[in-house]
Amino acid sequence: MNNERLKRQIDFIAEIDKLKQVYRKTVLMDGSRNENDAEHSWHLAVMAMILSEYASDKNIDVSRVIKMVLIHDLVEIYAGDTFCYDEKGNEDKACREQQAADRLFSILPRDQAEEFRSLWEEFEERVTPEARFASSLDRFQPLLHNYNTHGHTWVKYGVKSNQVLKRNQPMAEGAPQLWEYVKEIIEDSINKGYLER
Amino acid sequence: MNNERLKRQIDFIAEIDKLKQVYRKTVLMDGSRNENDAEHSWHLAVMAMILSEYASDKNIDVSRVIKMVLIHDLVEIYAGDTFCYDEKGNEDKACREQQAADRLFSILPRDQAEEFRSLWEEFEERVTPEARFASSLDRFQPLLHNYNTHGHTWVKYGVKSNQVLKRNQPMAEGAPQLWEYVKEIIEDSINKGYLER
Repeated sequence: MNNERLKRQIDFIAEIDKLKQVYRKTVLMDGSRNENDAEHSWHLAVMAMILSEYASDKNIDVSRVIKMVLIHDLVEIYAGDTFCYDEKGNEDKACREQQAADRLFSILPRDQAEEFRSLWEEFEERVTPEARFASSLDRFQPLLHNYNTHGHTWVKYGVKSNQVLKRNQPMAEGAPQLWEYVKEIIEDSINKGYLER
Repeated sequence: MNNERLKRQIDFIAEIDKLKQVYRKTVLMDGSRNENDAEHSWHLAVMAMILSEYASDKNIDVSRVIKMVLIHDLVEIYAGDTFCYDEKGNEDKACREQQAADRLFSILPRDQAEEFRSLWEEFEERVTPEARFASSLDRFQPLLHNYNTHGHTWVKYGVKSNQVLKRNQPMAEGAPQLWEYVKEIIEDSINKGYLER
């Protein structure tokens, strides 16, 4: 192939196959095994299609939300998944992920590397309405998984309800109606013994 | 929750978690295990972001391509994955998938059920430029996986090069430059012994 641009694109497509092997703490809704980042990203993208009416800004660009969630975890190919309730692991997370982004996105042709980097940074900064909504989905999805598996990850790692509330609090800004629903789920999870008060 | 609409949406989001357990004949690029439909759909969506410049129609709506590939395999939750070189399995595939679509999409609120159904039918019919490009990606991705795993699935099931050429031929219409590249890959795969002539 004499096309340097296409070669870089294909190399990137092959490299990101590794996202399918980055496993999360969350288990599938039938509890059979841990979920990986590629599946998680797919699920968020379909959720964006379905739930965009609950974004706090009714004029968000849903297609940018979808692109953001599709690539938001790519840096974990090199930086690994950091459990959201792991305080120590989260100390150097930003630094590890910046280095991973430099390495990964530079495989792409320059214009696309910049596009992907910019989308990823937008997601991380959580300033735009699209990023706030994308980030709300990223919180909501594992919570649904935990609720549907009798609190699997919460029980296993001894996570408390105040930690879950704090973790999901940004949903109040990104998707207020979903945040109200999440508070109901948390209360119900406490009542059912999936989560310690 | 007193919101029937949100309840249907959440039920659908939980139901489609099962796509993560629909396994394909294709293996991951390191050959370690079979790929599932959720991972495959995620990979296609990111490929659409990267490769849209190769679509035969330069004015395609990339966000519709992305939505199409995200949901194109959902019907397999009930209908199962049908191997593209399985002639018998492909005889009643359309019928099984129509029934699966009726059952699955009706979980959603009516307006969204119609949107998903319409996107899925557009993909299946391969008439619009977006559907042709989406379908090209759906052919290209497993071919890249086979090429990167020394022809894993081709060798395992005794697939011949004329079958692979025929399967990928629609790419000539949907993404002509990628089709030229695919012909190079097939030739190289024959030379390397990954594929029988």
